[in-house]
Amino acid sequence: MKVALITEYDGTDFVGFQSQNNGRAVHDVLTKALCELYKTDIKIEGCSRTDSGVHAGGHVSSLNVPFYIPEEKLPMAVNALLPDDLSVKKAVYVKDDFSARFSTLGKRYSYSIYSSPVRSPLKDRYSYHTTYKLSLSKMKKAAVFFSGEHDFASFCASGSSQKTTVRRLFSVDVFEKDEDIEIVVQGEAFLYNMVRIIAGTLLDVGCGKIEPEDIPSIIESCDRKSAGRTLPARGLKLEEVYYDWEKYKES
Amino acid sequence: MKVALITEYDGTDFVGFQSQNNGRAVHDVLTKALCELYKTDIKIEGCSRTDSGVHAGGHVSSLNVPFYIPEEKLPMAVNALLPDDLSVKKAVYVKDDFSARFSTLGKRYSYSIYSSPVRSPLKDRYSYHTTYKLSLSKMKKAAVFFSGEHDFASFCASGSSQKTTVRRLFSVDVFEKDEDIEIVVQGEAFLYNMVRIIAGTLLDVGCGKIEPEDIPSIIESCDRKSAGRTLPARGLKLEEVYYDWEKYKES
Repeated sequence: MKVALITEYDGTDFVGFQSQNNGRAVHDVLTKALCELYKTDIKIEGCSRTDSGVHAGGHVSSLNVPFYIPEEKLPMAVNALLPDDLSVKKAVYVKDDFSARFSTLGKRYSYSIYSSPVRSPLKDRYSYHTTYKLSLSKMKKAAVFFSGEHDFASFCASGSSQKTTVRRLFSVDVFEKDEDIEIVVQGEAFLYNMVRIIAGTLLDVGCGKIEPEDIPSIIESCDRKSAGRTLPARGLKLEEVYYDWEKYKES
Repeated sequence: MKVALITEYDGTDFVGFQSQNNGRAVHDVLTKALCELYKTDIKIEGCSRTDSGVHAGGHVSSLNVPFYIPEEKLPMAVNALLPDDLSVKKAVYVKDDFSARFSTLGKRYSYSIYSSPVRSPLKDRYSYHTTYKLSLSKMKKAAVFFSGEHDFASFCASGSSQKTTVRRLFSVDVFEKDEDIEIVVQGEAFLYNMVRIIAGTLLDVGCGKIEPEDIPSIIESCDRKSAGRTLPARGLKLEEVYYDWEKYKES
């Protein structure tokens, strides 16, 4: 019996999803709760690692379970064993060939930026602070150039070893949300730090250091140094992982 | 020379504004930074205490300072000496008769509630979780009964010693904000735990335990036990303190 768990977490006090030697990983905390619930060894597979400090509104893990707990009761049962900064939002029983990692069709991330002369303690946990006044219209103009299939080598952390740096993004949008700016990136798959570098580049566009029309040549250069800097983890959130749920759902 | 500082803080790791024996108070952390900045003893007066865990978007303190730092530079100068969960948003030089505590015309608080089958780690820090589906329209209907001058003894923490429990509220409003519910209370002055008890009572209305029409008799009873429970501090935020700034501003 296989189940997919959709989890939400505040990444601040985690070293990311994946187990690390140096701290508290979502993977480990979730595994511990599940082992306790099912009274046996449970191995979970995550849809992806998230970096230290990155938040998730809809991370997905899949796991084989030894007995049935109704879908609507499973989240509460696991949550009773989880700390405050991690919770299971939803459980879905899936067919055996479902893999949280390999069945994904894509992911949606958001990056939040707030612009203010002074930092805001009530925003800092989930948003990046800039003192620049940002041009939303310039950022919107620049964002459209990222859609589609490109070699995103300019937007990949240097030193990461990937077979190819070609990726397909479905869309990059920039919105105003309350008084803040939210960058929403949807794509098939992502390179290491890709969203945080795209956000850093759009920030440079917003404050006038880069013109929107420069984005195509920054992409074409395939040079990490031509893009903006990697913004901090706190502003990043894995919002949703896409699957063909109809195909994998256990009826 | 007197200055008013408008501060924002994440109340989670504070025991409240006022100095306590048992932990970190906003008053003390702010005073320490100001003493360091001005290289002398600074005494600050706060507009009000906030309870342990309560947040502030616009708390106000007033203080005499030994030398002039331009209004627009003062927040940054203090913030450089403050921890991440506290910041000065704005500084205003005021006349000597201004008192953060006694010159107030009123205050605005907000209380945030989110309704969801499972708790949300990304909301928990600033919002109260209920598993009930709340009726916004019932809550709106109930809210209007709180406006005006009433004896709010039913909405005052028992055991608190006040000369009178009569207070005047300008308005109580209930809004939908994103998917959550925000209760906004504006009033001249407040009793101990008053907003958190009003929020608890409106929560009971929202989930059908109390009817909107019952509010007048709950107020009239002057009996703490007739109102709802005190909701936790985390959902409460002191949004703004009202003053006649034109009168007190140093030109």
